[in-house]
Amino acid sequence: MLPTLKYDEKGLIPAIVQDIENGDVLMMAYMNETSLQATLDTGYTHFWSRSRQEYWKKGATSGDLQEVKELWYDCDADTVLVKVKQLGKGACHTGNRTCFFTKIEK
Amino acid sequence: MLPTLKYDEKGLIPAIVQDIENGDVLMMAYMNETSLQATLDTGYTHFWSRSRQEYWKKGATSGDLQEVKELWYDCDADTVLVKVKQLGKGACHTGNRTCFFTKIEK
Repeated sequence: MLPTLKYDEKGLIPAIVQDIENGDVLMMAYMNETSLQATLDTGYTHFWSRSRQEYWKKGATSGDLQEVKELWYDCDADTVLVKVKQLGKGACHTGNRTCFFTKIEK
Repeated sequence: MLPTLKYDEKGLIPAIVQDIENGDVLMMAYMNETSLQATLDTGYTHFWSRSRQEYWKKGATSGDLQEVKELWYDCDADTVLVKVKQLGKGACHTGNRTCFFTKIEK
């Protein structure tokens, strides 16, 4: 059952996706209550696409699905952490395994 | 030097903080360009507090500073990942080491 979470004024909550196998942070995307419930019910990550304004099952077309292993939320109840087994080639549409592949140097 | 990042309509960008030693996601908070620059310049995490509407050096009063080891951004340039050495007792004001200490069960 979903806990009472703090969604923003658009009804969204940021969801950090972490690879449960190696700890890499793979991506961050947004969920609303419906996509969070779908994530919990199906065992695969579902998001709300802010750019396309539609539900989005991660990997539905690419095959790069994310099997949900653990779901956590933070002390403020305004961020979700999803620990997944990443299937396919990775989380990023660029072909990288993680979306965080660019370093900021001083 | 800071890359061109996509700040939201309030000038903020979400920053995921990860423990570089064990890979734990410790917290998520928001930065604006000034706090991101301060993070880069000083080597300690700085955020913008949305509730208090002020700059916030993490651990300035508690001593739970975060030494920045690596700074990354994602493929959309709208999220930052900060890998830190967490000092003191932890990242969470509740006394937990990570803010993500509550599990959602199906």
